[in-house]
Amino acid sequence: MKPINLKEKHNLFNAHWHPHQIAVVDDMQVILAKLKGEFVWHAHENEDELFQVLKGTLYMQFRDRTEVVQEGEIIVVPKGVEHNPMTKNGEVVHVLLFEKLSTAHTGGVQDKLTKTNYPKI
Amino acid sequence: MKPINLKEKHNLFNAHWHPHQIAVVDDMQVILAKLKGEFVWHAHENEDELFQVLKGTLYMQFRDRTEVVQEGEIIVVPKGVEHNPMTKNGEVVHVLLFEKLSTAHTGGVQDKLTKTNYPKI
Repeated sequence: MKPINLKEKHNLFNAHWHPHQIAVVDDMQVILAKLKGEFVWHAHENEDELFQVLKGTLYMQFRDRTEVVQEGEIIVVPKGVEHNPMTKNGEVVHVLLFEKLSTAHTGGVQDKLTKTNYPKI
Repeated sequence: MKPINLKEKHNLFNAHWHPHQIAVVDDMQVILAKLKGEFVWHAHENEDELFQVLKGTLYMQFRDRTEVVQEGEIIVVPKGVEHNPMTKNGEVVHVLLFEKLSTAHTGGVQDKLTKTNYPKI
């Protein structure tokens, strides 16, 4: 029940593609992450996933197109839809995610980038 | 699966204390609202509620204290906790909320400000 400052929380870590949990809302969690380069193709079979761009430009790749998500914008990736977030030109993009506590980082895919533990900050 | 620009969506309405739904994530919804003045004391017995301040300063009143939530900050009001959001000096504060689709606007309280229909924009 205390205010949480998103920039201050983002300043607490530097690792790319490593989700950090800042809050829980019912059975969902609020995550911060710093993205750089390309992630991995995956889908979450049972959970939707919301991305909010706080800094920079996110390129959300779908199999049939790429959506450009700017600072101040959100995008919801529906359950079952393959996606692969990406940044361009070495930009570090700051995002907030809203997703179920049960959501696996890279869905059913195992990758060197896959994280199973999200630090609470 | 299209980006949603929060400022553009906020520009689509002017009414204060009237939630507008911009997205659904599983069984939760993303709401925008413009707040001005004081709302009404209420609690949501079964649902947590997240507020994110996009513009201005929100004063989240609890029975024992008031938390000041600035632009770029979030606050989670746990289920069952009485709260009453407020703005000061006539400021119109822009907020984003994450909450269950089942969440009643003013909990078990009926007020002239209570809305039962959230337009989808």
